[in-house]
Amino acid sequence: MLKSIAIMTSGGDSPGMNAAARAVARTALYEGVKVWGINDGYHGLLEEDLRELESKDVGDIIQRGGTFLGTARCKRWQTPEGRRLGHENLIKRGIEGLCVIGGDGSLRGAQLLSEEYGFPIVGLPGTIDNDVWGMDYTIGCDTAANTIIDAINKLRDTASAHRRVIVLEVMGRNCGWLALVAGISGGAEYILVPEEEFDLEEITNSLTAAYDRGKRYILIVVAEGAASGQEVCDYIAKHTDIETRVSVLGHIQRGGAPTVIDRVRASQLGEQAALALISGLSGVVFGYSKGHVVSVNLYDAVNNKKQLDPEYLHLAKVLF
Amino acid sequence: MLKSIAIMTSGGDSPGMNAAARAVARTALYEGVKVWGINDGYHGLLEEDLRELESKDVGDIIQRGGTFLGTARCKRWQTPEGRRLGHENLIKRGIEGLCVIGGDGSLRGAQLLSEEYGFPIVGLPGTIDNDVWGMDYTIGCDTAANTIIDAINKLRDTASAHRRVIVLEVMGRNCGWLALVAGISGGAEYILVPEEEFDLEEITNSLTAAYDRGKRYILIVVAEGAASGQEVCDYIAKHTDIETRVSVLGHIQRGGAPTVIDRVRASQLGEQAALALISGLSGVVFGYSKGHVVSVNLYDAVNNKKQLDPEYLHLAKVLF
Amino acid sequence: MLKSIAIMTSGGDSPGMNAAARAVARTALYEGVKVWGINDGYHGLLEEDLRELESKDVGDIIQRGGTFLGTARCKRWQTPEGRRLGHENLIKRGIEGLCVIGGDGSLRGAQLLSEEYGFPIVGLPGTIDNDVWGMDYTIGCDTAANTIIDAINKLRDTASAHRRVIVLEVMGRNCGWLALVAGISGGAEYILVPEEEFDLEEITNSLTAAYDRGKRYILIVVAEGAASGQEVCDYIAKHTDIETRVSVLGHIQRGGAPTVIDRVRASQLGEQAALALISGLSGVVFGYSKGHVVSVNLYDAVNNKKQLDPEYLHLAKVLF
Amino acid sequence: MLKSIAIMTSGGDSPGMNAAARAVARTALYEGVKVWGINDGYHGLLEEDLRELESKDVGDIIQRGGTFLGTARCKRWQTPEGRRLGHENLIKRGIEGLCVIGGDGSLRGAQLLSEEYGFPIVGLPGTIDNDVWGMDYTIGCDTAANTIIDAINKLRDTASAHRRVIVLEVMGRNCGWLALVAGISGGAEYILVPEEEFDLEEITNSLTAAYDRGKRYILIVVAEGAASGQEVCDYIAKHTDIETRVSVLGHIQRGGAPTVIDRVRASQLGEQAALALISGLSGVVFGYSKGHVVSVNLYDAVNNKKQLDPEYLHLAKVLF
Repeated sequence: MLKSIAIMTSGGDSPGMNAAARAVARTALYEGVKVWGINDGYHGLLEEDLRELESKDVGDIIQRGGTFLGTARCKRWQTPEGRRLGHENLIKRGIEGLCVIGGDGSLRGAQLLSEEYGFPIVGLPGTIDNDVWGMDYTIGCDTAANTIIDAINKLRDTASAHRRVIVLEVMGRNCGWLALVAGISGGAEYILVPEEEFDLEEITNSLTAAYDRGKRYILIVVAEGAASGQEVCDYIAKHTDIETRVSVLGHIQRGGAPTVIDRVRASQLGEQAALALISGLSGVVFGYSKGHVVSVNLYDAVNNKKQLDPEYLHLAKVLF
Repeated sequence: MLKSIAIMTSGGDSPGMNAAARAVARTALYEGVKVWGINDGYHGLLEEDLRELESKDVGDIIQRGGTFLGTARCKRWQTPEGRRLGHENLIKRGIEGLCVIGGDGSLRGAQLLSEEYGFPIVGLPGTIDNDVWGMDYTIGCDTAANTIIDAINKLRDTASAHRRVIVLEVMGRNCGWLALVAGISGGAEYILVPEEEFDLEEITNSLTAAYDRGKRYILIVVAEGAASGQEVCDYIAKHTDIETRVSVLGHIQRGGAPTVIDRVRASQLGEQAALALISGLSGVVFGYSKGHVVSVNLYDAVNNKKQLDPEYLHLAKVLF
Repeated sequence: MLKSIAIMTSGGDSPGMNAAARAVARTALYEGVKVWGINDGYHGLLEEDLRELESKDVGDIIQRGGTFLGTARCKRWQTPEGRRLGHENLIKRGIEGLCVIGGDGSLRGAQLLSEEYGFPIVGLPGTIDNDVWGMDYTIGCDTAANTIIDAINKLRDTASAHRRVIVLEVMGRNCGWLALVAGISGGAEYILVPEEEFDLEEITNSLTAAYDRGKRYILIVVAEGAASGQEVCDYIAKHTDIETRVSVLGHIQRGGAPTVIDRVRASQLGEQAALALISGLSGVVFGYSKGHVVSVNLYDAVNNKKQLDPEYLHLAKVLF
Repeated sequence: MLKSIAIMTSGGDSPGMNAAARAVARTALYEGVKVWGINDGYHGLLEEDLRELESKDVGDIIQRGGTFLGTARCKRWQTPEGRRLGHENLIKRGIEGLCVIGGDGSLRGAQLLSEEYGFPIVGLPGTIDNDVWGMDYTIGCDTAANTIIDAINKLRDTASAHRRVIVLEVMGRNCGWLALVAGISGGAEYILVPEEEFDLEEITNSLTAAYDRGKRYILIVVAEGAASGQEVCDYIAKHTDIETRVSVLGHIQRGGAPTVIDRVRASQLGEQAALALISGLSGVVFGYSKGHVVSVNLYDAVNNKKQLDPEYLHLAKVLF
């Protein structure tokens, strides 16, 4: 059983990272294990910016967005020298295992440390994109989806007042999950995701017909990885007489107090990750799938591409 | 294949009922089946207060709390005469199947109609309590849980300012699910649920010790079925010097725009229920369990008692 | 006393337009005056798309964003022929006065009708920009400002996690009011408004110094009329090493359920406008200033430029 | 000019207290004046629980509900001995003036210190009740009113689904301001305030008639000082067949992130209070009235009773 572990958050922040870090820390402390908090991700590890955590250090954070540990991008970690230094900085403090909370890229960075030094690593999927292979949930995706439907509610007011087409661009470079669930929930007429082809001409014809039948407004949700919202907007504006506007939601999607789901699951995953790491497990990511906490091989998680749930794709078509 | 079906919402309303009814209606219409909307539950069926629905009748409702069909309690439905009249009112319009969206009591009412007349029935679990056997999700429970944590966020501000104990009573007569997930998410120090015994003296001693260690405030979440919030508050106020306040959240928990989860799952369940009913299935409730839509025998669903997830009970203890 | 009046909403929609229209209608009906609702602004008037309103037609709308009457831009109204036709369409229905709810441009259109045909007109300032001369409040500005600080709350989470500069572009082509109050409320370090010069070089130097002192993030709020958010972001990114991101809030600012202030003031203004119009007054806009409903000459309102409150400009400097 | 001042928050907390304390502290520091923060109100002063504040101590709090200084009730302050000790604790640290942020009772406590010891005092009205004489705004009232209309939005969903009467009890022991503006904004049919008589029989008859005309639900907002919500509910349930429910909003009304109005006005008032105190003024409360910061004699403020705005009372009658 390990005696001392460290936690970091890395990459883009997501709501629930605090809840996850809190669960890791409290579980470890409960088990009598020392816990270090590393500030600003791999960058802080290289800068030796870390400190021991007590239980109260993670008090009053479960409800906060962002991450109390900070996060940063770190180019030096891409280099063997960077990782060597990072490993040294862990070893010389007696830290025996590391829990990394972050997205694809951050988990990949952790995988290298595990591979090259055999250093015990567990990962937690902290990303609003819900794009990690082997699980149907990542920490923060539920909050982000709810942030989007709040925006849709506001856009619907003004779209309906003006009889407009509104194109809403949301996050998701490789994965259309956010666009898909937010679009279904927001009653969007069209949802464009990177995983599926679409034909702007067909969409334009179809929405023109809908206006002719008396439709008061049309909402199109676009994942950034599928198309640029501005380009979709310009295309429709050019080929129809309908007033069209674009809204790019941007970084607002990353913030905000986490939802119940994101807090509860982050807590469950954090507890399991801490227990596993302490007991000597390594090279796994803990995720949530089909109603259960699951552990996924870290190498597989970062080297496979997740597919969109076909049920959701189907639903988007049937209900509109 | 059935040619004409009806939908009703019954019992206490829950956020997402509209999304479910919309999915039932749109799926049936898509399949070329006639759809009737019954107003105000069984009461409306007896009063012949129903109408055919078109696609646009369920437009612009996915984001709304409550139910556009209305709901009501109905004592006459408890009588054989009531049900005979209800059956007649369905038959004489050529309606061949009924989809009932509601909680325990409402599903029981549907079960009787199915049993006594062999009338094709499918149920959808619409209740914030998440207390229907055979599934780990009911429509509306996610929105209600998020409403509670919003309240907790506000209560925390004032509790912390005053160094108070706050006792928050939430819904859940037979089932502590709402109290449990909201309590975990809200960082509550104590969570009282009907499924588990608790000792107020022990809690009082423990919270006094926490105050002595410098704790700034304590939050206790109580399911109405476990204890009266007022009584818990009075007990603590009587046995300690700590300022204690109670808040009874009440009917606010039933309202509000549904969350993403409640909209998406209500839509999935509604689609499956409609397809099943149309194809001739009867006597089942569609629920969501372990990441999948499941169908549960209607008789079993209303005659068994759901247990709380032991993982959640465990989590509540470890993290505080 | 007039016997029949009409209401329209015109130009960009703003939260509280419904509350205002409701108050106009209910006040007039209470006084025994017939009320017409014109759909889609001047466009609807030219298309004869209007109907008589009853009290219940304006029920259940006080809490909704957008406008139940719809709104639209209308080029034909800019022409004398357009206005002649509009006047005819009013006259031939016996409508003796018109209440226009909208921003600068819409009120200007109303002013022309008043000037050219002596047709009784009262205006209500419906715009989130708070840029109408002669008053310190326009309907919708409070909701929009609160929408912006909600966004700032989310952006702060992620900015703080990443030690970033966030540039937030908000509405306000000619007027920095929204940027100024949202910036003060959101604790922004810099607020750029069209009414005041600023020096990007100076700002960049100052924020670099703040980072060197240990500041975790910087928020800059930019009114669209002062600068492009993207350009400000690019300038800082180019001249510093600090990670910088831009967020353009866009049309979300126009939507959403109105706040208490916007509902109450819209109601007060609507009542006064209806009473004035009915009693024969014309050529005035009703606004809110220094704690009172005020009436401003319509010509003056649309031909003068409002100044920013110097107290706010001062406050923004002192508190940061 | 004073060289050292102290700030405290006292009595019930209200949203915006943090913004006010931040403005007092930053203004004083900007003027080169030392600032002490007293924890937990008069209690902390007697316990010598205070510390010097720097600018960063009030960073990142403008958006938070509650008060970072804490607050408490304090019986000893009611005694001459308590106030003598409090005065000593200020004097021996060289503190020359005190800014108290709180409601009626807290300002009264400050007035005694000013009267008995000639100690320089300025007050800021921090209370959600908006019941301080001489001003039409107190810090926190706008946030509380918006919290109430959010609750009304949720209650409306469920009331409408069930065709119910909902009785909502809100805060306001002596003052109906909150009930009145929230009732107007929420479209309440009846609003009961302590300042006006009402007749439950009349209300019951009138609402029965409304149901008979087809009304789907009725909302009654009751200030706690006017009647008990439970009693109003029971009366109606007893005398009609209409399903009636009560909701007591409770302490939720005190919490939450402050609105734009509460942040901006608290900031303005805080700045003015600090400047006045530093320059030697004493015995005044700074409030906001008719669009301006006003200073009110402290004795007058706590010895006169505020009246409700008759325009609001009128509005509540006309629009429903």
